[in-house]
Amino acid sequence: MVSTANDLNGQAVAMRWHGDRLELLDQRLLPGEEKWLTTQRASEVAQCITDMVVRGAPAIGITAAYGVVLAARYAGGGDWQAEIKQAIRELAASRPTAVNLFWALERMETVFHGCHSLAEALERLDAEARRIHEEDVAGNQAMADYALDVMQPESPISVLTHCNTGALATGGYGTALGVIRRLHEKQLLDRVYADETRPWLQGSRLTAWELARDSIPVTLNADGAAASILASGKVKWVVVGADRITANGDVANKIGTYSLAVLARHHKVKFMVVAPSSTVDMALAEGRDIPIEERDGAEVREMGGRQLAPAGIRVFNPVFDVTPANLIDAIVTEKGAVHNPNITGMNALFG
Amino acid sequence: MVSTANDLNGQAVAMRWHGDRLELLDQRLLPGEEKWLTTQRASEVAQCITDMVVRGAPAIGITAAYGVVLAARYAGGGDWQAEIKQAIRELAASRPTAVNLFWALERMETVFHGCHSLAEALERLDAEARRIHEEDVAGNQAMADYALDVMQPESPISVLTHCNTGALATGGYGTALGVIRRLHEKQLLDRVYADETRPWLQGSRLTAWELARDSIPVTLNADGAAASILASGKVKWVVVGADRITANGDVANKIGTYSLAVLARHHKVKFMVVAPSSTVDMALAEGRDIPIEERDGAEVREMGGRQLAPAGIRVFNPVFDVTPANLIDAIVTEKGAVHNPNITGMNALFG
Repeated sequence: MVSTANDLNGQAVAMRWHGDRLELLDQRLLPGEEKWLTTQRASEVAQCITDMVVRGAPAIGITAAYGVVLAARYAGGGDWQAEIKQAIRELAASRPTAVNLFWALERMETVFHGCHSLAEALERLDAEARRIHEEDVAGNQAMADYALDVMQPESPISVLTHCNTGALATGGYGTALGVIRRLHEKQLLDRVYADETRPWLQGSRLTAWELARDSIPVTLNADGAAASILASGKVKWVVVGADRITANGDVANKIGTYSLAVLARHHKVKFMVVAPSSTVDMALAEGRDIPIEERDGAEVREMGGRQLAPAGIRVFNPVFDVTPANLIDAIVTEKGAVHNPNITGMNALFG
Repeated sequence: MVSTANDLNGQAVAMRWHGDRLELLDQRLLPGEEKWLTTQRASEVAQCITDMVVRGAPAIGITAAYGVVLAARYAGGGDWQAEIKQAIRELAASRPTAVNLFWALERMETVFHGCHSLAEALERLDAEARRIHEEDVAGNQAMADYALDVMQPESPISVLTHCNTGALATGGYGTALGVIRRLHEKQLLDRVYADETRPWLQGSRLTAWELARDSIPVTLNADGAAASILASGKVKWVVVGADRITANGDVANKIGTYSLAVLARHHKVKFMVVAPSSTVDMALAEGRDIPIEERDGAEVREMGGRQLAPAGIRVFNPVFDVTPANLIDAIVTEKGAVHNPNITGMNALFG
């Protein structure tokens, strides 16, 4: 009962499903240590999501789905339906703002409601969780195909990326980082420049680790050095993910993305956003409608308990910024690509 | 025998001279602790420069000059001339690439060569060191005046800065940060946004500390958040220092500066460089003639012994970047301002 998405040609993955247990890579210990936690109970899975053992919206959704299977697998002799319902509630509460989490649990709940026995539930829930996982990987592979159609590199190119959008954040392969993997597989990648991505350092801790592990040539840089890299002419594309995409093609993504988009345009470097279509929200007209969460200033003032700035100093610490559509050369999803995105192009694919 | 530059209206300073001892603020402990080290020997001063107790080119030059005075003050009964010469050699070796260090020591050596007794040497060296110190502060004040003539703000404005160009890096008051102090003194400053300035975090550790200490309103931000701040329309000027300025007005400064210049132009925010005229090198035609030092990747991979990225991963870690003159609205020195710098304007002031 091993999942087909457990081992993508030996590449880095965030989770491994064995039917009776879910192994999670403890991402809190990266890049120093590669340690796998084994979970056999839904409550353990929920705790791992809460504790950020696993992060990245698609990876969280898949992890929670497997958590529901474990609830069925280890249901006691009593009211198995109540046990599974309780597990779904517990998993839903593990990370309050994760859209993919609720979406995956809804799919699991729909399947569960049609079941008449625990054996049937276990079989159908297991199949559904694997489907969610495999669909995610297949979607990432489709994005990579569409992205290479857009890029059409004739010889190896270098790209620059921001944050982590890789195997560690998804069911495997990655979104923007999946495009980079595909370039590498086709021997069309010279080098990846990875922004360290302050304040959380996802670029240093996760992207650099993931790429180095899979022998993809990567150079790490401070975010402020990206402009010099783009000015050098070495990079042909900046490739990033998205947290949310509006009806006109504006993109909210990790803080620092907008800066790269302006710099890319100035240096005539192409700028691509790669994300699942679930990120597109056609109900939002434009980027200014997206609320931008600001997080605690301690994330900038401190690191691992070490004081970097005067205690209590005022900090501007937004999680996301908004890149306007007119700075984006292509938005790529598993449904296809929108070139020079605007409301017409977005409507054609997502309307 | 207290220096007049010891206490600039109670504002932050990096050094205090008492005639028989030099006190240095231990900048390695900032922002956590304000601790002063007292030095009475030239060799102690040299060690403090080597150990980065004091940093910033002008501050290092002034510190070394006072070190020469201490050599004269505590010369033994024997060959006082040899002792002072030895101290100058030792101070010159304390930081091999610091231009201001050699310049200050040359001034001290010239004075020393004309002296016929230890008493005369002590008096004249002391006077020369104070002059170097006071000239630096006076230069910074002059830059601030010229800068406000350029800015002509009619009501309080907000500015954004990068790295540390303040009292801690100079004899006092600061260059780019001196302009910000002057705005504040004239009640023309709303707020300073300070880039944290990776990888060394001079913005977090020094600029935020210095401004907070002197009650100047400051908000710290990750470098990647600067674009969002500029997009918000809150900031009227980006104000930065310079490491080196070429004959055509190109500017080498701390990595991340060029990024800000591109972002400022995109958002129609003005961009000002403030630096002593000693930074201008009319023998260098343009920015591409400036060698850009790359430092060890460990500065990006690690912090305080904590591993942030995979061990040994390749890092692009340039100290400086080059901002082309066409992105600069004004270069301001103690000799005056060059608007929209080009070779003609630079020649008029520095030729």
